[in-house]
Amino acid sequence: MFTTDKNRLEDKIVTFSKFGATPGGGITRFEFSEANLQARAEFKKRMEAVGAEFKTDDFANMYATVKGSEDLPSIVMASHLDSVRNGGNYDGVLGVLTAMEVLESIVTQKIPHRHPITVMVWTNEEGSYYPPAMMSSGVICGKFDEAKMLASKNPEGKTFGEALKESGYQGQRENRLNPKDYKAMLELHIEQGPVLESRNMDIGVVEGVVGMVNYRIRTYGQSDHAGTTPMSHRKDALLAAASAIKYLHEQFDKLDSELVYTTGEIFCKPCVHTVIPNLVDFSLDARHKDPEVIKQVVEIIENMPKELDKCRVESELQWSRDTIEFDQELINFVEKNANEFGYPNMRIYSGAGHDAQFVSEMMPTTMIFVPSKDGHSHCEIEFTPLDQCWKGSNVLLNTVLDVDKK
Amino acid sequence: MFTTDKNRLEDKIVTFSKFGATPGGGITRFEFSEANLQARAEFKKRMEAVGAEFKTDDFANMYATVKGSEDLPSIVMASHLDSVRNGGNYDGVLGVLTAMEVLESIVTQKIPHRHPITVMVWTNEEGSYYPPAMMSSGVICGKFDEAKMLASKNPEGKTFGEALKESGYQGQRENRLNPKDYKAMLELHIEQGPVLESRNMDIGVVEGVVGMVNYRIRTYGQSDHAGTTPMSHRKDALLAAASAIKYLHEQFDKLDSELVYTTGEIFCKPCVHTVIPNLVDFSLDARHKDPEVIKQVVEIIENMPKELDKCRVESELQWSRDTIEFDQELINFVEKNANEFGYPNMRIYSGAGHDAQFVSEMMPTTMIFVPSKDGHSHCEIEFTPLDQCWKGSNVLLNTVLDVDKK
Repeated sequence: MFTTDKNRLEDKIVTFSKFGATPGGGITRFEFSEANLQARAEFKKRMEAVGAEFKTDDFANMYATVKGSEDLPSIVMASHLDSVRNGGNYDGVLGVLTAMEVLESIVTQKIPHRHPITVMVWTNEEGSYYPPAMMSSGVICGKFDEAKMLASKNPEGKTFGEALKESGYQGQRENRLNPKDYKAMLELHIEQGPVLESRNMDIGVVEGVVGMVNYRIRTYGQSDHAGTTPMSHRKDALLAAASAIKYLHEQFDKLDSELVYTTGEIFCKPCVHTVIPNLVDFSLDARHKDPEVIKQVVEIIENMPKELDKCRVESELQWSRDTIEFDQELINFVEKNANEFGYPNMRIYSGAGHDAQFVSEMMPTTMIFVPSKDGHSHCEIEFTPLDQCWKGSNVLLNTVLDVDKK
Repeated sequence: MFTTDKNRLEDKIVTFSKFGATPGGGITRFEFSEANLQARAEFKKRMEAVGAEFKTDDFANMYATVKGSEDLPSIVMASHLDSVRNGGNYDGVLGVLTAMEVLESIVTQKIPHRHPITVMVWTNEEGSYYPPAMMSSGVICGKFDEAKMLASKNPEGKTFGEALKESGYQGQRENRLNPKDYKAMLELHIEQGPVLESRNMDIGVVEGVVGMVNYRIRTYGQSDHAGTTPMSHRKDALLAAASAIKYLHEQFDKLDSELVYTTGEIFCKPCVHTVIPNLVDFSLDARHKDPEVIKQVVEIIENMPKELDKCRVESELQWSRDTIEFDQELINFVEKNANEFGYPNMRIYSGAGHDAQFVSEMMPTTMIFVPSKDGHSHCEIEFTPLDQCWKGSNVLLNTVLDVDKK
């Protein structure tokens, strides 16, 4: 078993944490921000320093490749350097830094490999400044409309296409990740949940990404004056929404315990303290790996009362995705390597979306998870102990070498 | 019994409905907007046409006075011409138009009166563009800090003080309504609720303004990823808020049936569909004429669970007002006149706040209500049939004459 260098990995984590550092100990590193360009430059500098050839594609995705001993498709390790507002130092970037460390280990330890090995950085995975999330993997894997993505605007009105041109990182379209030139993709990521930590696991062997449905649920009331309308005359859309939220919780809690569901957004109109709300609109996001459970969720939503507290209740499906299954052979490599190192590990589905889910439809793909302290992510206190980051990079290194052999 | 002219009143309603007319049949007439200045100019023109002397005070409150036969303090009828966004053609303005019609009737019918009679227009009652509501009565009756009010900003950043200067209606401070120069104030207003209509009443004999408490209630959760956080690990502030709203409804519904309470505003943080809410903040407005019932409301809020769905729950009193009782003699005049006309009437408390509640601490004051169709107000469909507007003006006229005699 080969291992990476823990001190070198620590240096990478510390260095990249400076690009877009926030007072609270996290980072804000929107795509194409100054902090993001600093991180990109550091990536390029460090990759060229270990002898990798650097290129970008037309979506500014970056590729740093070290040749193999044979003329074969490349094995790619990929993640992202952008972050949400006041995000942490691990989501996305740890996948890039462990991949860099794996490549550096292969080069410095002169580990023989037949295939070229590529470290790739996806552009705008978070979509925090230019929505949506997973923008460029969505385009490159044929999921999103390219023109629409180029027209996506930040809150100041600048388009993603303009920012892309100005970034200095726009390259050739023919450089895009593709199944002819690339053999497989691996992505290391933090779990972003508490499961691995709570079970004392070092490694999550990711089997796929859970399926999900996303709904808007709306309650329709009647706006009247808070001081003059007797309770018996009211149609209060917020009371109805509270009833709907409680109802959904009661119903969903009867389903499989691995189901997760979230009402994260709520808007109220007119949202004035002296006026009875006439419209409340809230989001519902539900995820489970088993399509049967998702079907039960949909049934509950479709059969929920059409009227609550005298208010009409409507639901509207916004989007859904089926469960993605990663490549069985790659999953087995990850599990075998974690076992051979003696790292406690478990199989797990990703609840969050990742670029890897799009890539998995194009070429063999899998992911490796490392624990998130207290399950926190997309926040400044996001943390994974160095030792577990390093163990993750060791599993990643040996999985790349397994892929290289087959 | 004297009566006003129904056709003339209709003309006033139709004319003033044009100033700030919205496509939906209502008006948007923020204080000092172009539409508001048109309405002010029309008021001045019409009042001077019937021989009234026009003046304004330093808050641009307008006073149109017809002299009486003796050198006595004036009897004032007052309301406001400004509106909420997409408001209706009756709230506030009907009090001004009926007062104008009363004055015009007194002048044209040469009804003898000892006291001067004044029609007054309050500036910025709604506070829709420059908060708060009842701004200038608050200042003139010593309830609000004058400097703070002048510094109040509209959403574009202009101060009320600047807009006041630019309006052309700023007059002398010594012209302010005061208990030396004015004997009593009467305000006709729409009910803004469904009670009069549902009981087939033409006139509401207003006894006072109900007391109220205004709270913010906050639930504190933990933001985590919607896809990766098992339900058992969650602290969902929106679920807790839904539980709190349901709890408050259950408890309050056990109290007196005339209690009204409203959760009109709700805010959620971070309000992202993929993130569990960590903070929800909602308003609670509760009103009842009996201080004992308000005390029960406060007890329920103070004794509500400090934790719901694993989230901390906090409440904070924002403000409160005690029940205001109007002048008994004036109330009796209103009731007597409604009865003498044979207009079905009932005693009622105002659930909404009005300038009259501040004035009542300075001089004898009361209000007259006319019905609101379906109880709607602060919306474009706000409506009171002409016949009931006219009946209201007849009661107002004869009440002015009663006050004049005493």
